[in-house]
Amino acid sequence: MKTVGILGGGQLARMMVLAGTPLGVRFIVLDPAPDACASQVAPMVNGGFADANALDEFAARADVATFDFENVPAESADSLLKRVPVFPNPRALGIAQDRLAEKTLFGELDIPVAPFAVVDNRVQLDEAIASVGTPCILKTRRLGYDGKGQFRLLSPADADAAWDALGAQASKVGLILEGFVEFERELSVVAVRDRHGEFRSWPVTENWHVDGVLSASLAPASVSDVLAEQATSHARKVADALDYVGVFALELFCRDGELLANEMAPRVHNSGHWTIEGAETSQFQNHLRAVLGLPLGATRMLGHACMLNWIGAMPAPEAVLAEPSGHWHDYGKAAREGRKVGHATLRADSAAELAAALERVGDSLDRAGQVAPVVERLRKLDRA
Amino acid sequence: MKTVGILGGGQLARMMVLAGTPLGVRFIVLDPAPDACASQVAPMVNGGFADANALDEFAARADVATFDFENVPAESADSLLKRVPVFPNPRALGIAQDRLAEKTLFGELDIPVAPFAVVDNRVQLDEAIASVGTPCILKTRRLGYDGKGQFRLLSPADADAAWDALGAQASKVGLILEGFVEFERELSVVAVRDRHGEFRSWPVTENWHVDGVLSASLAPASVSDVLAEQATSHARKVADALDYVGVFALELFCRDGELLANEMAPRVHNSGHWTIEGAETSQFQNHLRAVLGLPLGATRMLGHACMLNWIGAMPAPEAVLAEPSGHWHDYGKAAREGRKVGHATLRADSAAELAAALERVGDSLDRAGQVAPVVERLRKLDRA
Repeated sequence: MKTVGILGGGQLARMMVLAGTPLGVRFIVLDPAPDACASQVAPMVNGGFADANALDEFAARADVATFDFENVPAESADSLLKRVPVFPNPRALGIAQDRLAEKTLFGELDIPVAPFAVVDNRVQLDEAIASVGTPCILKTRRLGYDGKGQFRLLSPADADAAWDALGAQASKVGLILEGFVEFERELSVVAVRDRHGEFRSWPVTENWHVDGVLSASLAPASVSDVLAEQATSHARKVADALDYVGVFALELFCRDGELLANEMAPRVHNSGHWTIEGAETSQFQNHLRAVLGLPLGATRMLGHACMLNWIGAMPAPEAVLAEPSGHWHDYGKAAREGRKVGHATLRADSAAELAAALERVGDSLDRAGQVAPVVERLRKLDRA
Repeated sequence: MKTVGILGGGQLARMMVLAGTPLGVRFIVLDPAPDACASQVAPMVNGGFADANALDEFAARADVATFDFENVPAESADSLLKRVPVFPNPRALGIAQDRLAEKTLFGELDIPVAPFAVVDNRVQLDEAIASVGTPCILKTRRLGYDGKGQFRLLSPADADAAWDALGAQASKVGLILEGFVEFERELSVVAVRDRHGEFRSWPVTENWHVDGVLSASLAPASVSDVLAEQATSHARKVADALDYVGVFALELFCRDGELLANEMAPRVHNSGHWTIEGAETSQFQNHLRAVLGLPLGATRMLGHACMLNWIGAMPAPEAVLAEPSGHWHDYGKAAREGRKVGHATLRADSAAELAAALERVGDSLDRAGQVAPVVERLRKLDRA
């Protein structure tokens, strides 16, 4: 019986364990937090991602390693690779960790991106603003997630404030200035590629963020076949270029019917959580099938699915569970402001049914604002 | 966060843990085997079901208790009930444990059963044969499962042999003589009832046994609406009579278009494993929702599903995983003759597609015999 090692023991690892256990594998997770929520369902090595002893113990107990967390130091991934196979490969991880490398790769692959420029010092910031234009966003190249490590500039006059906020990061994790995209929609392609290069993607998903954190996802996104095909083709090109093995997400902006790649996440992704109940095979199981060298499962979905993220604290489950196709995911975490503690998925055969279910849940949980943009999209779809 | 205690740590407990963890609960299992397979995903108290110390520790760690194994001594269930709520209630468990009490209940509820008679001694055996007729089967009243503890009599002349085989059990667990039903089909209704009496059942399932052990299940069974309604109505009557809370299965024979109740299993059931991927809510999650007092999930299914049991040793997974809707369940057990070590579920939108998938899997795994009766049934359905 093989053991899959997962670097990071959060909710993604936890859902991997739940989806992968039926494959007959065991798990070991590595996490610095003694109460990491995946440790409720799998044994854990408690230690930092750069802790050589912890990595040693982890490697000794794993037959293959993967990630629930993309900001594992590249050196740790490299040192692991000397002991066990690591999927996705550390080069792919390294590129996905670095906004500059990632955007450069997108450019090489003819995948449109917003204008960007590297910023290593204060002078370069002015040059970058001149070349990229405003509005724009100064971001850390590494270690940013969920909107952290970002500063928005409305005009060149904001350069000093931006530098005050993030300048100290320039020598640590690097900075990049990106043109601000006035997008109409945020989309993502969650896809999987196996060891032989077989590629499969789930239907394109539309996402809504609040304060930089994912709030709701809807699948399938109501986009044209041409746009869906383009999005999927972009994802395939990235995966092939990186010889990627496992699940990843490509986040895209849609503006005037055109796609701009934003970033990729080299792991199972929050915008793919709906696949647990909404698709024939979930992102979690297909990630493990890929990592273990097993055949990939079908990614088809039936009907419509919406995922709602629970941030900070779990609401009461009854309103969701009372829906005919309401599914509940409590990550077993303590409540904390801004923390992803769980999600719900609602499915329905028709857009109208899903909209009605979302409205009931939004009303019951006093979260009408969270469901409103999804309901609006579904109503448009229903009328179309 | 509540902890659900499960008496028994086999594959049913394991699948309960996997399905119930998203509800945000924790688990504790009690099992006499130190390597019980549920202990791979949940903490375990290692001890016997009648071990007072083990039961004490188990009860201290659980907020509510349930079963993966129906032959827990009734006294153990009763003593647990003084410490924590127990679902299903020990009276329901006691009746389901005893073929005589169960058959008597079915009779009281006007649910047809094959003729039966209690057998406490050798003389009563002759009397029972005279009243029940031959062919018939002598069975232990308690502790029988998967065809164990049974002796088939073709004529009254077999009475001595039957008594030699099982007579010693008469004073221990009791004996019952049942008329042998020349059935055309074996069906089961897997259903759930919650604390408020809400009742839901999954579509009627057809089952095939080999050597007394379940080999394959197909849902929905190709039965008339009238028959399906009767079967479900029988299950509802039993559940209401027992004030049953949780999932159970009612096994039925179908002969000349009429249903005869065989027995009930007071737990999640092998013939309901297809619900994991084949129904909106699985039997495992609905059992936990019932036990925890949460709203029940929808039991509807889409298309057709077939479950194949793996007995003794796991086959290679690739043939099943390569099917568009092939799902794999390895229970993490060591191979052993006659042991249920895993199962696979195949789903399809049409009967013809499912039949074709089963044939491919049967051929690849050299198990054409296992899939043949299911394929035959699906082909008839497809032509109808």
